[in-house]
Amino acid sequence: MKLRIVPLFGIYFVGLFFGCGGSSHELALPAPPAPEGNRMNYARIKLGEKLFFDPRLSGSNWISCATCHNPALGWSDGLPTGLGHAMQPLGRNTPTIINAAYNTAQFWDGRVETLEAQALGPIEASGEMNQNPGELVAELKAIEGYPPLFESAYPDLGLSPAAIAAALAVFERTIISGDSPFDRWRRGAEAAVSQSAVRGFDLFQGKAKCQACHSGPNFSDGGFHNIGVRDQGEFDPGRFRVTPVKINQGGFKTPGLRDAARTGPYMHNGSYRTLREVVDHYDRGGDVKWNLDPEMKPLGLTEQEKEDIVEFLLSLTGDSIPVTIPELPQ
Amino acid sequence: MKLRIVPLFGIYFVGLFFGCGGSSHELALPAPPAPEGNRMNYARIKLGEKLFFDPRLSGSNWISCATCHNPALGWSDGLPTGLGHAMQPLGRNTPTIINAAYNTAQFWDGRVETLEAQALGPIEASGEMNQNPGELVAELKAIEGYPPLFESAYPDLGLSPAAIAAALAVFERTIISGDSPFDRWRRGAEAAVSQSAVRGFDLFQGKAKCQACHSGPNFSDGGFHNIGVRDQGEFDPGRFRVTPVKINQGGFKTPGLRDAARTGPYMHNGSYRTLREVVDHYDRGGDVKWNLDPEMKPLGLTEQEKEDIVEFLLSLTGDSIPVTIPELPQ
Repeated sequence: MKLRIVPLFGIYFVGLFFGCGGSSHELALPAPPAPEGNRMNYARIKLGEKLFFDPRLSGSNWISCATCHNPALGWSDGLPTGLGHAMQPLGRNTPTIINAAYNTAQFWDGRVETLEAQALGPIEASGEMNQNPGELVAELKAIEGYPPLFESAYPDLGLSPAAIAAALAVFERTIISGDSPFDRWRRGAEAAVSQSAVRGFDLFQGKAKCQACHSGPNFSDGGFHNIGVRDQGEFDPGRFRVTPVKINQGGFKTPGLRDAARTGPYMHNGSYRTLREVVDHYDRGGDVKWNLDPEMKPLGLTEQEKEDIVEFLLSLTGDSIPVTIPELPQ
Repeated sequence: MKLRIVPLFGIYFVGLFFGCGGSSHELALPAPPAPEGNRMNYARIKLGEKLFFDPRLSGSNWISCATCHNPALGWSDGLPTGLGHAMQPLGRNTPTIINAAYNTAQFWDGRVETLEAQALGPIEASGEMNQNPGELVAELKAIEGYPPLFESAYPDLGLSPAAIAAALAVFERTIISGDSPFDRWRRGAEAAVSQSAVRGFDLFQGKAKCQACHSGPNFSDGGFHNIGVRDQGEFDPGRFRVTPVKINQGGFKTPGLRDAARTGPYMHNGSYRTLREVVDHYDRGGDVKWNLDPEMKPLGLTEQEKEDIVEFLLSLTGDSIPVTIPELPQ
């Protein structure tokens, strides 16, 4: 199934030979979804960008989306678990915004499907941004520059909670990591990744069975699995709170793996600081054996194999996403 | 003293005529100071930029310099008074970074002179970033990417509190607002500002006596004055804490006025939300009459004159300073 490149008269013919052309790009990231009701356009992106960076979206006027989804730290916060209003500790690791566009469910427990449905959640949560949406609308209406931006981005919705959520979702869909050394290698640039990364990719698909869940172009099946991560505090039932059937006890969403090098610490509770620790976890077959996903078995990886898998994961690091801090209406 | 432009054969001869050439540029901002011991160079700027945006500089790893000196809000926080560790309220308005390079004293009470001497203050303060400098050095040393950046920026200092402060100071000296409509008007572009702003500048220098303290190219005399701002909580002695002589009771540093439109609320305790409220304050001759600066007298400004002064202040708004969020070492 590997991509093949055939140089002929100085021109490279890619993949169409030997009948394997159709599969060569199955891991290339497609364009992000563009929901019928909230298509992307310039006015919406620029409005969403301002809202994303505006601390006045929080009750304290001090915490913005970017405080915890910090572009400087892989659009997350670099902490094991997040902090919210008054710096109170939150229970789970802050998910990155990178490629959230491709998530089929949002939050670690997938309790909502779309970015539009997600966006107001942390704003309203008393432990996070602690803001009442009605008050937020009143506050933004009082900031001279905002109403015209909403008017032009969402003439039908106007300055409303729904428009705030929609604009944030549109902005988030611009934060895409897709073109990594791995992708360049898949397209035929053999030298784009190391031989160790190539071996790691083979292990990822084969012996280590990672692809059982981390599948598709964003390396997530969108499903929920209990992978036996030790709780740091009290037991977190995860997906079970959304759908209370036993298989969901301790189950959390499979995160995508693109840009994983930027988004540590890892796991729903940030148990691991490095990708190597994550690989070690899987090699052990997880730590807590109760209600474990049936795929979770010790892997018997050698030291070299573990290093190779980490090398493969590092090869999924895309170019950095340069964001210019917007100037906010005053 | 007004700038004169003489078009002759299609070429504009500026200011040299009528003997007033020497004074035409006295309000143009010179290059920022470059201290002998901490000259600006690329490695230092880029290191300082990373440090400025890195929340790991705080004890919580959640608050960066940019949290309160937020580029999206005029390099301040948009709040009357700041918030710090655990979101505890601070006593004074967060000063902007814009043109801090030109300050001859730092903090509202001027208790240190240089940006180098200032930079560690908020990092160490338990109510602000709550970080021990020794621990900070250990933490940054443990982040793989940082030691080489310090090595190349400050080979003599290495990764040390002094180098952290120095790099932050160098970065801050790049955040300059100088080229505003006012400056373009001073250089001869008559249409760059409104007639109201021109009248406002005359009032600023004349009837309203603003220039008594807001003097020079950054519109600050670097001095400390009690201008009779009502305390919001308990009495803040200001400069008196630094130099306990009566004239300093309730005295605060004259802030520069460039980019004032971006840096509200105003005054050391953020009493006023708008520039118009500030002008009204001076027109009343201040609110608290005790130990007032002798220059503080009611001004008897008309409605139009107040509007004109605000228009002049708005004309000091420079082009926005586009900052790309740096990617931080992980």
